[in-house]
Amino acid sequence: MEQTKIVLDEKEMPAKWYNIMADMPNKPAPPLHPGTKQPVGPQDLSAIFPMALIEQEVSAERWIPIPEEVLKIYALWRPTPLYRARRLESALGTPAKIYYKHEGVSPAGSHKPNTAVPQAYYNKQAGIRRIATETGAGQWGSAMAFAGGLFGLDVLVYMVKVSYHQKPYRRSAMETWGAKVLASPSGETNAGRKVLGDDPESSGSLGIAISEAVEDAATHADTNYALGSVLNHVLLHQTVIGLEAQKQFEKAGDYPDVIYGCCGGGSNLAGVSSPFVRDKIGGRKVRVVAVEPTSCPTLTKGQMRYDFGDTVGLTPLLMMYTLGHDFVPPGIHAGGLRYHGDAPLICQLYKDGLIEAEAHGQRAVFEAALTFARSEGIIPAPESAHAIKGVIDEALRCKEAKEKKTIFFNLSGHGIFDLGAYDAYLSGKLEDYAYPEEKIKEALARLPVV
Amino acid sequence: MEQTKIVLDEKEMPAKWYNIMADMPNKPAPPLHPGTKQPVGPQDLSAIFPMALIEQEVSAERWIPIPEEVLKIYALWRPTPLYRARRLESALGTPAKIYYKHEGVSPAGSHKPNTAVPQAYYNKQAGIRRIATETGAGQWGSAMAFAGGLFGLDVLVYMVKVSYHQKPYRRSAMETWGAKVLASPSGETNAGRKVLGDDPESSGSLGIAISEAVEDAATHADTNYALGSVLNHVLLHQTVIGLEAQKQFEKAGDYPDVIYGCCGGGSNLAGVSSPFVRDKIGGRKVRVVAVEPTSCPTLTKGQMRYDFGDTVGLTPLLMMYTLGHDFVPPGIHAGGLRYHGDAPLICQLYKDGLIEAEAHGQRAVFEAALTFARSEGIIPAPESAHAIKGVIDEALRCKEAKEKKTIFFNLSGHGIFDLGAYDAYLSGKLEDYAYPEEKIKEALARLPVV
Repeated sequence: MEQTKIVLDEKEMPAKWYNIMADMPNKPAPPLHPGTKQPVGPQDLSAIFPMALIEQEVSAERWIPIPEEVLKIYALWRPTPLYRARRLESALGTPAKIYYKHEGVSPAGSHKPNTAVPQAYYNKQAGIRRIATETGAGQWGSAMAFAGGLFGLDVLVYMVKVSYHQKPYRRSAMETWGAKVLASPSGETNAGRKVLGDDPESSGSLGIAISEAVEDAATHADTNYALGSVLNHVLLHQTVIGLEAQKQFEKAGDYPDVIYGCCGGGSNLAGVSSPFVRDKIGGRKVRVVAVEPTSCPTLTKGQMRYDFGDTVGLTPLLMMYTLGHDFVPPGIHAGGLRYHGDAPLICQLYKDGLIEAEAHGQRAVFEAALTFARSEGIIPAPESAHAIKGVIDEALRCKEAKEKKTIFFNLSGHGIFDLGAYDAYLSGKLEDYAYPEEKIKEALARLPVV
Repeated sequence: MEQTKIVLDEKEMPAKWYNIMADMPNKPAPPLHPGTKQPVGPQDLSAIFPMALIEQEVSAERWIPIPEEVLKIYALWRPTPLYRARRLESALGTPAKIYYKHEGVSPAGSHKPNTAVPQAYYNKQAGIRRIATETGAGQWGSAMAFAGGLFGLDVLVYMVKVSYHQKPYRRSAMETWGAKVLASPSGETNAGRKVLGDDPESSGSLGIAISEAVEDAATHADTNYALGSVLNHVLLHQTVIGLEAQKQFEKAGDYPDVIYGCCGGGSNLAGVSSPFVRDKIGGRKVRVVAVEPTSCPTLTKGQMRYDFGDTVGLTPLLMMYTLGHDFVPPGIHAGGLRYHGDAPLICQLYKDGLIEAEAHGQRAVFEAALTFARSEGIIPAPESAHAIKGVIDEALRCKEAKEKKTIFFNLSGHGIFDLGAYDAYLSGKLEDYAYPEEKIKEALARLPVV
């Protein structure tokens, strides 16, 4: 019988994370203090992050050991399988070989626990008792609730109010893992009270929720803040995905010609592709493609500039492709990947031509998701479906050109939490939307000059 | 590092199902025709089932080969991992070793696809174009939608109306896999129209939905019916779980002293335990315990009698422990496992002392679920949480007695679809309920005398 998936024993799990900073031809520009506009130092971050994570954030070491306690918890779902998508290949009639890594097998249903677990671990080691974080749709909040629970940390999740009410099951999941969830804006922080004072009916935004979580962490000695994407240490932790995949491709006697990953903040794309980008820097031929929504086209339409990480402007300035920090995703956008910027690390690789990017409309993305669900059986997360759209287009180009390319993508999560978005698509309620270039220009004109 | 899970390569997947009928000391009594009260023959069933499944239903062969096409689809998620629940053991402070098989890794999230896939395969082989089936909470309908989709069968799911409206995401999942879902009672069948004629506001019941699906299958030449539990062939297909587990225990150098499985219709319990019950019949020491809710206590409070498989009384009479076919589960019951009877095969094993049974209230069951989610990380299906409650009690007895027993259970599914029930528990809205013995007595007095 033809092999469907390549599995690894947990003894074959990578023992170190791979830090692409060591091999990049050009390093990303440093983050700047929002007040002084000078590069931030470790002391600026120590109020909200443990020193071990700050060290990882700035490290240039190629390999960083994964603590045994983290490996033990990774083993609850890792190594994840590498699938050969034979049924999808048949459905498309392509000569291309399609592989995918399935990160949806984690208890929280996505790749996010790969970093939530070490973040919880290092905070626990540092004597922290409590984590404050934010969540929009719930993917990251779930991962942090899961990971914090396993280390006995209290987790407080500021959840964007509109999601809090629209997605009560996400909240129930976080509570089941033991976390406390507050609708943001809340009355618990100055930031929240200020927003509620101006607009008692505010339905919240990710920017406001970040401000609340950061304020909570900065004002409680026993509390730190945790972020689920964008930062170097987050991307570092996700490299277990690509490192496992390299071992699995070796077992399969194959190697990807092209790798697709959806790109919101960039952690899943960096996680799956970094070890392969290292090969590329070393001269191996492999393409890496970031797929983003046309409704939030940071890489394809944004500009590489210093911009704030949050909407309110409290975080350091990051050098990244941005749509402007006051970007507000349209309400009709159902597919995740709503961040106004991207990880500085991903942006530098994109600028240097080591990563490509493309954008797709959400109806085409959900159509690709259905093709996948009806051939491979797994209902993909809407975020992951962006990668699938890229892969299907590539496989059809191979069909046209009669090329036997090896295509690889990361299925970053399952879509069982996102069936409301599927329902909207199936009932014809989802509209395509391309974020207007005029609005991007205006937003970029408002950015601080650094 | 201590091993967390024992994985098998897909080459190690069982190639045959195990039919416990071959080894049972006493065979189950035959099903009887509801009209003539004579044993039903293959011809009675051929209007709604393909001959290959009817042959499996009555087979006494010990081993039945799994078709290659079915194995290929099983490989999308099988073999499933066998976990050593080290974190749960620590949380309980028990000297017992706890293992569980994780069937929630299937695309539909439960063990149900183990039988949905071969049922779809044999129907496709028989030239059937369309499957009619029913679903209550949605577990079985999802599995059939998934499996039918992979074989290009049209699947029509009659979904109990109250669930159809309460669980729109279950419906969206089935539609994503390509199935059509109707709220039952519907206007599509005589059975549905009759119910709606009597009560236009009827919120439906599993019994009515079964009647609609069976009528649909019986009145369309291109359509068959599919059932997700109770019948012999369904239990047969589920034995892949126990067969894989035996190989995994061999690799771990261990063997269970006691096996827990939740029991609604009995397919998950039979699937995980049959190969071990065979060992027990052969003289090996192993206990098997069925866990059911106190709100539907078929084995612990019902009587072994001939009773109808459905509420309306259209199906053959089955010899089983029953609460009476007009049993209606209380509305406050959130934990699944609502069938008024049990698989005849499980009932015979229980009667012969090869299986034990115990019942638990739902608040204790959800408390066990939270203990599991907060130690092992996986949110269990409420059904599976019944087995977990049994396991935790056993592990605490081992702690008391300082016994190093090996405990094994089947985690039949994840609970991501069931977060509404968790929400009800967490917000204090779930009540315990023991089905009154008086009502059972009355219902049994109404049964046909055979």
